[in-house]
Amino acid sequence: MDKFSRRALLGAAAATAAVSAVGTPALAAAPQSGKQAPGFYRYMVGSIEITVVNDGVSRMPITEGFVENASKDDVNAALQAAFLEKDFYAGPYNPVVINNGAKLALVDTGTGEQAFKASKGLNGRLPLSLAAAGIDPAAVDAVIISHYHGDHINGLLKADGSLAFPNAEILVPATEHNFWMDDGEMSRATKPRVVFGFKNTRRVFSAEVLKRVRTYDWNKEVIGGVTAIGTPGHTPGHTSHVVSSGAKSIYVQADVTHAPFLFARHPEWHFMLDVEPVAAEATRRKVYDMLVAERMLVQGFHYPFPSVGHVEKSGTGYREVLVNWTPLI
Amino acid sequence: MDKFSRRALLGAAAATAAVSAVGTPALAAAPQSGKQAPGFYRYMVGSIEITVVNDGVSRMPITEGFVENASKDDVNAALQAAFLEKDFYAGPYNPVVINNGAKLALVDTGTGEQAFKASKGLNGRLPLSLAAAGIDPAAVDAVIISHYHGDHINGLLKADGSLAFPNAEILVPATEHNFWMDDGEMSRATKPRVVFGFKNTRRVFSAEVLKRVRTYDWNKEVIGGVTAIGTPGHTPGHTSHVVSSGAKSIYVQADVTHAPFLFARHPEWHFMLDVEPVAAEATRRKVYDMLVAERMLVQGFHYPFPSVGHVEKSGTGYREVLVNWTPLI
Repeated sequence: MDKFSRRALLGAAAATAAVSAVGTPALAAAPQSGKQAPGFYRYMVGSIEITVVNDGVSRMPITEGFVENASKDDVNAALQAAFLEKDFYAGPYNPVVINNGAKLALVDTGTGEQAFKASKGLNGRLPLSLAAAGIDPAAVDAVIISHYHGDHINGLLKADGSLAFPNAEILVPATEHNFWMDDGEMSRATKPRVVFGFKNTRRVFSAEVLKRVRTYDWNKEVIGGVTAIGTPGHTPGHTSHVVSSGAKSIYVQADVTHAPFLFARHPEWHFMLDVEPVAAEATRRKVYDMLVAERMLVQGFHYPFPSVGHVEKSGTGYREVLVNWTPLI
Repeated sequence: MDKFSRRALLGAAAATAAVSAVGTPALAAAPQSGKQAPGFYRYMVGSIEITVVNDGVSRMPITEGFVENASKDDVNAALQAAFLEKDFYAGPYNPVVINNGAKLALVDTGTGEQAFKASKGLNGRLPLSLAAAGIDPAAVDAVIISHYHGDHINGLLKADGSLAFPNAEILVPATEHNFWMDDGEMSRATKPRVVFGFKNTRRVFSAEVLKRVRTYDWNKEVIGGVTAIGTPGHTPGHTSHVVSSGAKSIYVQADVTHAPFLFARHPEWHFMLDVEPVAAEATRRKVYDMLVAERMLVQGFHYPFPSVGHVEKSGTGYREVLVNWTPLI
């Protein structure tokens, strides 16, 4: 495009020194609000109501090693291709609430009250999103955990160490629980992030929390309409959940991919937080090939809010197509 | 994928007849909410605050002629490629509020209070979204109109015919105003939808409304930081707006494309509502090539909410990449 037509389209300021046709002063210099809308989104799967409750977003610097088998430059190129700021990973956090008509269950807890303070409100926002959505933490019957990374379990506790969901059972994948609570596994851990994971698990799973824990198994219903699916690799007991009602179903994938603009686009990338990266890649490809073949909706914990969409093939990877927002459920 | 691995991934109900590990009855059968989150979204362009205020979505049957130069089957194929229901056009409506610190301006008004009743709340939602966003219609200093189609002007009036924005100037593109208010142009109109447009314009632009109208010209500032850009074709005086502040700018495109899942993907398609379809296509290609080349953000009235994103080339057309929702502005 030549400069002239670009200028005509952009309306370059240089061309617009002449004053507007309108000279009336502002009626009321209304203050800017500065506030975002509440971070929740609702949809139905058959007769089951899903509420996505945003916990905010991370802001991590991208270092060499962020992806074990790709360079910082490669990661920055992927961020740029997604029209995102380079050098930082803005990884969204999106727990979901499932109301099947009999039970109110939260899947994963977000980063917790302490994170809200530490991040100045950038994350740890689950309590705000629940309140905006009209969901009382005391009414939550069950917290279903996908895996034991901090952004999924830390929100079990308030900053003072008390239970964030005081009346809820805490339903955890048996394989995941057995791995992280095993002192032998802990003694054999070498990666610093995995060592930290063992320590954090022991902090969060206090005696009071453990009293409320019940383990669940893969390929069984966890609550009515919600079936646990083993998707190991990101962690050894990493678990996804299929929510089904009538002819509808959705795949709640947890961390089969982290943010799709990096890890669905590049299923071959081994994220530094993967405990077993080779297994994680195999799981990712298997699940995503299934999502594409079945045209199945996926709800992604680290997808951009509202974090629900379809998946299609794109280049050597996959691309998400988020659902179109709708005012009526 | 073989049936076995698909079943393992989907956790087919047949495989999960065994009862869950969890038998405790629900604490409190919390009622389902049934309510969507409020339809607004905020972001900054330099020091200018933008609030997208959703007016809902249309639900029009797709007929032969919906696209003048493509069949109903072609349109359905595009809907299916976008993972959308076939046979219906769910076209979103997204006006924006611009607060430049001195003036509070609404760009386009949505479908109006009457539409809310007629659609049972599917559209005509602008007043609800404004209220949720904390914006008082009486505080709006200016309503900036892009063009004279009903979904952009009907919301100037309440159902009783009174002014929806009682203190606002109504800033309209001179070319557009001159076309639709010209009795000679009206007498020469033949397309039924254009004839209807002339009638609707005369209904909306009552004597009371006309008292508040001021025309503006292309390539001039309409209010501080907002420059009008001629993008004719969809209508003869169709106008887009570039909002600029500091190093940032965004292209508020109005109807350069209708919903991008149809008309950005297929810039060659002539929508039945285009008054001058050939000119509309030329404008669309010019603007979208510029958006791609400049990597410029675009705000699209008919984009899926929150209706702001970048544009990239895709096949023989373009694809939008919506911004990632963020809790802090």
